Amino acid sequence: MKVLVIGANGLIGGGVAHVLRTNHDVISASRSSDVNVDVNDPASIAAMYKQVGKVDAVVACIGKVAFKPLLELSRDDYLKGFTDKVLGQIELVNQGVDYVNDSGSFTLTTGVLAREPIKTGALAGLANGALESFVIGASIELPRGIRINAVSPSVLAEAAGYHSYFPGFAHVSLAEVANTYVKSVEGWSTGQIYELG
Amino acid sequence: MKVLVIGANGLIGGGVAHVLRTNHDVISASRSSDVNVDVNDPASIAAMYKQVGKVDAVVACIGKVAFKPLLELSRDDYLKGFTDKVLGQIELVNQGVDYVNDSGSFTLTTGVLAREPIKTGALAGLANGALESFVIGASIELPRGIRINAVSPSVLAEAAGYHSYFPGFAHVSLAEVANTYVKSVEGWSTGQIYELG
Repeated sequence: MKVLVIGANGLIGGGVAHVLRTNHDVISASRSSDVNVDVNDPASIAAMYKQVGKVDAVVACIGKVAFKPLLELSRDDYLKGFTDKVLGQIELVNQGVDYVNDSGSFTLTTGVLAREPIKTGALAGLANGALESFVIGASIELPRGIRINAVSPSVLAEAAGYHSYFPGFAHVSLAEVANTYVKSVEGWSTGQIYELG
Repeated sequence: MKVLVIGANGLIGGGVAHVLRTNHDVISASRSSDVNVDVNDPASIAAMYKQVGKVDAVVACIGKVAFKPLLELSRDDYLKGFTDKVLGQIELVNQGVDYVNDSGSFTLTTGVLAREPIKTGALAGLANGALESFVIGASIELPRGIRINAVSPSVLAEAAGYHSYFPGFAHVSLAEVANTYVKSVEGWSTGQIYELG
């Protein structure tokens, strides 16, 4: 398969691209990859798809949101977080439909804060919850058998710097997370939220 | 208790205000109530709270989103829906913290599309999912024992005009829905998503 991984310079995106490369033709895109894209800019996404052409799968490992105490989150923080993580991934889907082959797939990235809280995590949770419900909704409307799923991991074992913010949360390995993207890409499921940890 | 119901002119808000009036001092706010508010405008929300003063509970029954086929939803639809339903309710919480008494509560309104799809419902689902994860996140950060929950009903039995869009979905009665807001307001729970139907 030809697989486009957006956010391939991040910890998860890099791990996913590495594992997918075993069996697939992987194209890496990010703000600093050969294929350049700024997911906040719909025109940049359009240019990326034009450059890459038809693909069998799109994997989105992107999304920045502010982590701040609830009462310090500003309206602008919410709008920016929504625009980057939520609309960024949705724009990859909406524009990507014309480039994904029949029965191809979109795999989005959410996370455990959709379902469990940590301090300063309300906006991250909001973004994850929005995307997970979007995946459920979009799964019944995508044309030509195109599928859509989300991978929703707990904190990564390899991200030790974050562990203290997630007390008692399961640590999931990058290998397990990457393998779940493989399940979404190579499998036949749609509308699934793969909760890890 | 003194309870502020925003969106009191809607089907759910009206039903909730009616039931709460049995035991409480209920203040109704909406675009066309004695207490006027436009939830898209933070300054309007500020003016509402200033007019109403301290309350024991805030009930938000508001939120407009576009219902359109997935591939017809524009970036503007997403931004408007997010701003109205999601940021509208979050702004009611953020500004309301200063007006809610100790151990008081916020009760937000979401819906079944957070967890189950219908055609044209992807944006509504996104908004509901965003709010439900926000409630989970915010519940551990609100000060002075202030609580927050969401009521997440399936289609209302009384909303017959919508039933055909929700084939096979449970119809929940307005009485049951209203009673769930009572549970949130008079009870002691926080961080709960009350799924009905």
